[in-house]
Amino acid sequence: RHGNALRTFATVKTPSSLFTPLDAFPERHIGPDDKEVALMTSKLGCDSMDAFVATAVPAHIRIDTADITDSTIPALSESELHARAKELGAKNKLYKSYIGMGYHTAVVPPVILRNVMENPAWYTPYTPYQPEIAQGRLESLVNFQTMIMSMTSMDIANSSLLDEATAAAEAMVMAFVAANQKKRTFIVDTAVLPQTLSVLRTRAKGFGINVIVKDLNEGMFEDKELVSDLCGVLVQYPDVNGRITDYAALTKKVHESKALMTVATDLLALTMLKPPGEWGADIVLGNSARFGVPAGYGGPHAGFFAVTDKLKRRMPGRLIGRSKDTMGNPAYRLALQMTFTAREQHIRREKATSNICTSQALLANMAAMYAVYHGPTGLKNIALKVHGFTQVLKTSVEKLGYKVTNGPTFFDTLTIQASSSPAKSAAALHEASLAAGLNLRKVDDDHVGVTLDESVKPQELVALINVFASAAGASPVDLNSLSSSTVTESSIPSDLRRTSAFLPHPVFNTHHSETEMLRYIFHLASKDLGLVHSMISLGSCTMKLNSTSSMIPLTWPEFSNIHPFVPFDQVVGYRTIIKELEDDLCRITGFHSASLQPNSGAAGEYAGLSVIRAYHESRGEQHRDVCLIPLSAHGTNPASAVMAGLKVVPIKTHHDGNLDLEDLRAKATQHKDRLAAFMITYPSTFGVFEDGIQDACKIIHDNGGQVYLDGANLNAQVGLTNPAVCGGDVCHLNLHKTFAIPHGGGGPGVGPICVAEHLAPFLPCHPVTKIGTSSSIDAVSAAPYGSASIHLISWAYIKMLGGKGLVDSSKIALLNANYMAYRLSSHYNLRYKNDNGRVAHELLIDLAEFDKSAGLKVADFAKRLQDYGFHPPTCSWPISTCMLIEPTESETLEEVDRFCDAMIQIRKEVQDVIDGKQPRENNVLRNAPHPISVIALSEEQWNRPYSRQTAAYPAPWLYEKKFWPTVARIDDAYGDLNLICDCPSVEDTVSAQ
Amino acid sequence: RHGNALRTFATVKTPSSLFTPLDAFPERHIGPDDKEVALMTSKLGCDSMDAFVATAVPAHIRIDTADITDSTIPALSESELHARAKELGAKNKLYKSYIGMGYHTAVVPPVILRNVMENPAWYTPYTPYQPEIAQGRLESLVNFQTMIMSMTSMDIANSSLLDEATAAAEAMVMAFVAANQKKRTFIVDTAVLPQTLSVLRTRAKGFGINVIVKDLNEGMFEDKELVSDLCGVLVQYPDVNGRITDYAALTKKVHESKALMTVATDLLALTMLKPPGEWGADIVLGNSARFGVPAGYGGPHAGFFAVTDKLKRRMPGRLIGRSKDTMGNPAYRLALQMTFTAREQHIRREKATSNICTSQALLANMAAMYAVYHGPTGLKNIALKVHGFTQVLKTSVEKLGYKVTNGPTFFDTLTIQASSSPAKSAAALHEASLAAGLNLRKVDDDHVGVTLDESVKPQELVALINVFASAAGASPVDLNSLSSSTVTESSIPSDLRRTSAFLPHPVFNTHHSETEMLRYIFHLASKDLGLVHSMISLGSCTMKLNSTSSMIPLTWPEFSNIHPFVPFDQVVGYRTIIKELEDDLCRITGFHSASLQPNSGAAGEYAGLSVIRAYHESRGEQHRDVCLIPLSAHGTNPASAVMAGLKVVPIKTHHDGNLDLEDLRAKATQHKDRLAAFMITYPSTFGVFEDGIQDACKIIHDNGGQVYLDGANLNAQVGLTNPAVCGGDVCHLNLHKTFAIPHGGGGPGVGPICVAEHLAPFLPCHPVTKIGTSSSIDAVSAAPYGSASIHLISWAYIKMLGGKGLVDSSKIALLNANYMAYRLSSHYNLRYKNDNGRVAHELLIDLAEFDKSAGLKVADFAKRLQDYGFHPPTCSWPISTCMLIEPTESETLEEVDRFCDAMIQIRKEVQDVIDGKQPRENNVLRNAPHPISVIALSEEQWNRPYSRQTAAYPAPWLYEKKFWPTVARIDDAYGDLNLICDCPSVEDTVSAQ
Ligand SMILES: Cc1ncc(COP(=O)(O)O)c(C=O)c1O
Ligand SMILES: Cc1ncc(COP(=O)(O)O)c(C=O)c1O
Ligand SMILES: O=C([O-])O
Repeated sequence: RHGNALRTFATVKTPSSLFTPLDAFPERHIGPDDKEVALMTSKLGCDSMDAFVATAVPAHIRIDTADITDSTIPALSESELHARAKELGAKNKLYKSYIGMGYHTAVVPPVILRNVMENPAWYTPYTPYQPEIAQGRLESLVNFQTMIMSMTSMDIANSSLLDEATAAAEAMVMAFVAANQKKRTFIVDTAVLPQTLSVLRTRAKGFGINVIVKDLNEGMFEDKELVSDLCGVLVQYPDVNGRITDYAALTKKVHESKALMTVATDLLALTMLKPPGEWGADIVLGNSARFGVPAGYGGPHAGFFAVTDKLKRRMPGRLIGRSKDTMGNPAYRLALQMTFTAREQHIRREKATSNICTSQALLANMAAMYAVYHGPTGLKNIALKVHGFTQVLKTSVEKLGYKVTNGPTFFDTLTIQASSSPAKSAAALHEASLAAGLNLRKVDDDHVGVTLDESVKPQELVALINVFASAAGASPVDLNSLSSSTVTESSIPSDLRRTSAFLPHPVFNTHHSETEMLRYIFHLASKDLGLVHSMISLGSCTMKLNSTSSMIPLTWPEFSNIHPFVPFDQVVGYRTIIKELEDDLCRITGFHSASLQPNSGAAGEYAGLSVIRAYHESRGEQHRDVCLIPLSAHGTNPASAVMAGLKVVPIKTHHDGNLDLEDLRAKATQHKDRLAAFMITYPSTFGVFEDGIQDACKIIHDNGGQVYLDGANLNAQVGLTNPAVCGGDVCHLNLHKTFAIPHGGGGPGVGPICVAEHLAPFLPCHPVTKIGTSSSIDAVSAAPYGSASIHLISWAYIKMLGGKGLVDSSKIALLNANYMAYRLSSHYNLRYKNDNGRVAHELLIDLAEFDKSAGLKVADFAKRLQDYGFHPPTCSWPISTCMLIEPTESETLEEVDRFCDAMIQIRKEVQDVIDGKQPRENNVLRNAPHPISVIALSEEQWNRPYSRQTAAYPAPWLYEKKFWPTVARIDDAYGDLNLICDCPSVEDTVSAQ
Repeated sequence: RHGNALRTFATVKTPSSLFTPLDAFPERHIGPDDKEVALMTSKLGCDSMDAFVATAVPAHIRIDTADITDSTIPALSESELHARAKELGAKNKLYKSYIGMGYHTAVVPPVILRNVMENPAWYTPYTPYQPEIAQGRLESLVNFQTMIMSMTSMDIANSSLLDEATAAAEAMVMAFVAANQKKRTFIVDTAVLPQTLSVLRTRAKGFGINVIVKDLNEGMFEDKELVSDLCGVLVQYPDVNGRITDYAALTKKVHESKALMTVATDLLALTMLKPPGEWGADIVLGNSARFGVPAGYGGPHAGFFAVTDKLKRRMPGRLIGRSKDTMGNPAYRLALQMTFTAREQHIRREKATSNICTSQALLANMAAMYAVYHGPTGLKNIALKVHGFTQVLKTSVEKLGYKVTNGPTFFDTLTIQASSSPAKSAAALHEASLAAGLNLRKVDDDHVGVTLDESVKPQELVALINVFASAAGASPVDLNSLSSSTVTESSIPSDLRRTSAFLPHPVFNTHHSETEMLRYIFHLASKDLGLVHSMISLGSCTMKLNSTSSMIPLTWPEFSNIHPFVPFDQVVGYRTIIKELEDDLCRITGFHSASLQPNSGAAGEYAGLSVIRAYHESRGEQHRDVCLIPLSAHGTNPASAVMAGLKVVPIKTHHDGNLDLEDLRAKATQHKDRLAAFMITYPSTFGVFEDGIQDACKIIHDNGGQVYLDGANLNAQVGLTNPAVCGGDVCHLNLHKTFAIPHGGGGPGVGPICVAEHLAPFLPCHPVTKIGTSSSIDAVSAAPYGSASIHLISWAYIKMLGGKGLVDSSKIALLNANYMAYRLSSHYNLRYKNDNGRVAHELLIDLAEFDKSAGLKVADFAKRLQDYGFHPPTCSWPISTCMLIEPTESETLEEVDRFCDAMIQIRKEVQDVIDGKQPRENNVLRNAPHPISVIALSEEQWNRPYSRQTAAYPAPWLYEKKFWPTVARIDDAYGDLNLICDCPSVEDTVSAQ
């Protein structure tokens, strides 16, 4: 055993002075202590950390050591960070927002807040690619899908998209593709959310789609030219102004035009409204945040997306399905589909029409849990209350002389005309509302909007009404004067009232007491391996510590209960954090400006490429549309390029992972006139610090292109090198990797882009909140700052580590990976090392040989690792026969050694197969993983040429601590043939009994 | 299957009006829904809930239905409660306190805050009497014991006491008992904490001990008379004024006098001070709160208690030891000792000298985790900082002309004379400190005290110094002017510097990164069954929902960071909550006044009896010293009586559990002149609503006695009957039972007493905070309001349920128990039903017959229940062959049915043994529980006449959800012979490898 004896005497640093805080974060964040570092560097033949780093990172890309230090980024201790977050939080004003426009003040059931959102067992796991150790969140995501399907009455729903606006963009592209990319007109109703329209405009550009905004009417189908080019229509139901329109006839017309009908809708309203699936919608989408997810100044929250059966194989995003394990027991999995694989790294590349990878699993789970807790009746009660309050408001303002302009129909939103009343102008109403500490929607000079939600208390309704009273010079009302007897469904057109049942599944009708809910939450969590259990060494995904100090402020109301469209003076705290984070990210990347709007890495790629296109366009070079991308790139790269309207030209890589510079030069020269961009991941997806990066960038620049650096691997760079020094013009960062936002079991994420000065004017703007410049591209996300609340996490991470801690983290990340390479390379085929024998922050081992010698594939190693209590590393990417392993700086030598021990022991198990001591079919690897239910099989059923002990406890530490998979290996073939993506129904349940 | 199909369609209530909040708590708290209630009542042959209740609760003790309603106790919804708590929290002023006197502002490491204190997996489990499903917290409590032993250098430590003052009282009694209760003088140094002294005075009374407060000196041993009566001495080290005294010579003298030397000390100081164990202390005690437990306006926190080897068999409280399971694997358990058993219900009764039952497990675990996280070096760093800051303060105030009166020695506390300086009076200093938002200790008119702690930031030190500058009319200092170079150990006498190592055990030297700490916390939690898993039907312990809404405010700084001795105007919020809680408890019990000071039920009993004694005394009847107690009483009852100086006279109970009224009458008459009190639990410990309760109380009153009602079973009463109607004069309540404070794995608890008007003047006072009357008894806890922060939980529970919810809860608690009795009584021997065939809120089943018929004992049933995923009910109490089962109102019918199914299935397994189908020795019950490691045994080792499936999955639901014990049955005999109460040492670890 390597680590154990040593770690037993972990060293603790002694502070340098009396006034040094004792709760410094770097010591807590970084796993190995000084002694372990010394041991590892010496094993690697170096006498100092710096000597080691010099062997790993090419000298010519190193940045000045003065760039990232405790002077440039001073470190706050954990308690100092807490105090600073409190101070900034106090600078956000907690006004009550009735702005609506797709955002509400959610009521998060406390049991879900504490036990899902604030529980590392839920927020630290990875995307559930390893279903045997992820059945808990897979089940919950199926609950989410089922909820969406049931509420919308659609055939199939995915397990979340980034937000409503990007979901609408996916729908638009789906409509375009469904029409074979031949018909380019996409009509959007005028009363769609403005941020949705903005994102549609951005997305339409790359595909050459024509977005036309119109007041919809059936008459428009007279225009034959329009119809012949029509691929889809988007409506909002109810619309942004509150109106509820019957689109059944329109939908027919759309279908007659062979176009797709897309409906953006509201889950709560659907408890009372006839669901779009019942009147013919092809695609239904929206935002699930009002189901118990805090607004957080814009996010994160889960967008939803549901389609008819015939569109299901084109579904973007992740789809969870039910399958069986090898024992025949039901089990959930990420469903593979015909048109793309579930491993996002294998996204459809050049043929892709969507690039979504990281989605919003944690928030989808919260929304699903909210539905589980409330059940159909509870949800209906909430809707009736919101609707009833809106009725009271309407009656009250009408009594005051205001005109409500959304006609007779509404669910929770009213548009109110000021000039019809003594208030005269919208300005008077906004003045009165701000004085009362509340926000109304700014519609125009004469109208305001009001949207109610579950959080509104009777006294708040009174205060809201009194804003209108005060602006009208009337005397205030009190609660007693408000009749509560007016609640009817009359403001919903009778044809549009929901008559169908929803959420009849057992799971939504069982867990309604807090005790049951708590047990359900814990039961699901108990099936999932997260960072609370052991290292998750996912190459290219950087699963590091998600510190509690950085997570705590998130759920403070001063950060969580803020609408994204409030005036700037209400978010001074938020904007300070955003500014500081942008500045720090620029310092770290060497760039000039940043945008935090993209909600994921892939969204960042797309935003960055769009910025590059806008730049070329600004110089009259809109024809530049070729994007060079190495073959080894992550699947999102080519997908994003295609979405940005670029033609992908692949660049070869050498066997060792290095870019083929000659091929690059050839292609760049060949496409000189049309060269828009070159996308490259650095260090490469093989875990390589390529020497030629600067040369490569020069080639591109010489040929008129811009360089996009994929920053997924930034963890190897921080403070040692940076994308600017390497020669890039723009990069995205995955804050959910390098900057410690938890993976949430598959999202949320933040994929900010940082750009050089010449690109800064083109960073995205927003249609509601005034950011950006006149040259800005349109929005890429619904909210101005994307998933604003979780920016806090990365901000805290950077502030607590400080410059030195950031650099040390990168160094230790390199050291851990190289130590692991050192230990594993005598047992496995390490695909790449540099001339000094070094990898970067991750290592690629190739298992190809074992297919021949033992009939074993990567999956067999991966599943067997589960038996050792580990989450497997990234499998079969970037090379199908490989594992990409990234330990990160947060893992101690003890844990790294434990993982190596497991891998080495597995290698011995493999040798037994090679040597014929164990059969090729029926062995511990092929049969892995071994859940308890298998260990408990009777002797006849067991029927394996190895013992239960060997199966379950192949390493001594497992007796004390082992995470157990809860199902046996899952049958992908069965799952693909039987795509069941909703919860078992009552019938299933009964028949199974 | 009973519940499942039904529960699948749980009903949700529809609100009665538009303005009714939708997040009403009763629906979430109460398990069964209306349909389930209807089903259960009908199974019980009743057509309504009220009809059912009438059959269970005797009519003549029913209270007016108007007493407890939503008008008398209005219900707040969950969000309303949150808002109200925020509002009240804002009325507490967050001044920085330097008051010291045993309380500090703790720095809680965020990873411990979120994952222990705020994690229901840690706070909901029961006391670890079932070690196979409690290895996690048992290990953590051993860490606590080891930490105490190591810091104090004592041979053995227990796993916590209620607080420092009660620990001192336990020490005093131990000294008294060690001297065979013959020598009655106990000398306390003048510089002991005043609250400790007050509690000593209370406790001394019952035992007739003479507490003498003196400035200690060796000369006092000249006084032969004194010495001959001396049983013990108590000193504070460092003392309340900050001085550090060398007590080695004094200790020698104490030992020569055959008395015990007791030392109250401070864990942080012991990192630098020679530990008392090294200079001869017999007993060392204190408060562990500064190790990461929030002050919470007084508590809860863990008192500690350590003794020399020769005193270990007299140790009060719980002691965790290491033993082995039947497979020979190491396992922890509550150690049985010679002088008392670990089941507190079997406390030593009349011979007891301590009554401690519920202790402070959760807080002990937090303190232990703090030491695990910081390790010895980290702790030393913290001590050096605190000491260094104190040195800077001293230098600074001396420079300003103040005299520091604690002589040259100090650790973290200074006593500063005002008149020696331009400040002139203490009043001027207090005025300046309040103006600066900070609190100093009030010593006297001329002196103030200042105590520093880990939380003090450099700028706060500056602000503190500037209070002294301002009072002295000097100009303020700034941080730069404070030299940090002065830090030395010189203010600790060289003979008293610690030279020995502490915490050398691996566990304190491993988990220093946050990732490791998180994994350790989760790993331990994964071994423990709590309410997050399944019902814990512990008769007499009421394990109900501990709602998240009631837990959330606890850890807000406005409640957690408040010193117990701040002026009243800084705790307006706290005092409002305390007042409201007292009022509600009085309303519920029918009494006049309440005291929240007792930290546990047992402490409440003792307080209540002391109040009764004071009452008698006030009437010149101090000779009344007989206490009648039924034989079936909980062990704490007689123990408390003895501690209050009462002679216990037992009263018989009938076989059916009813009190023998004739015996009562006879004994009451017999002891008429000396009758002080009668203690009785109602409903009785057999789960009986005895008809004769009022008659019994009348008998007592007629004979001059007072009636003490043990309110542990109040959950059966709330809103239906109450202790006052039953005829009591005083009762204690277990807020950690009926009023939903989580058990915390063995504490904290709150045991308030409610009293009739004539007893109100005698409720406890406090020596520092002015509460009580001139007739009050002395303090029973260190803090004026005991464990103040957790009062919030019960306050929230009552406010959120409201009157109706409270009554409904009692009714459903009765219903669930009676439904369970109905299902189980055809399979088991139900010990008691009333004339209508009803039990109260719990049921007693007798397993005696199976000993004969199958060789099976209660423990075999209990351990087998673990295999079904359940925590066993209360075992072997109040009758050794019985189980006492209490489902509570929070469990759904489905869960109740699942438990019944398990019990019925076990009965079948028993039948197989009776019928000879399974052997009497080697069967599923005798071998239970079956951990995974046993299931994984090889075929030869398995060697059992039943299958692994039968062992592991005896019921179908277990395939989907099962909590696994982590060790096999634990060998009590081995553990008793080998009392190992600390962590394995490095040597153990190494030799085991
Ligand atoms: C190299 C690389 N680029 C881009 C991405 C996409 O990031 P996201 O999942 O946040 O969309 C990933 C994600 O794993 C990646 O590894
Ligand atoms: C009947 C009865 N009385 C008193 C107590 C003592 O309460 P505590 O454990 O809080 O000291 C208990 C605890 O189980 C009990 O059941
Ligand atoms: O597939 C990934 O999420 O990297």
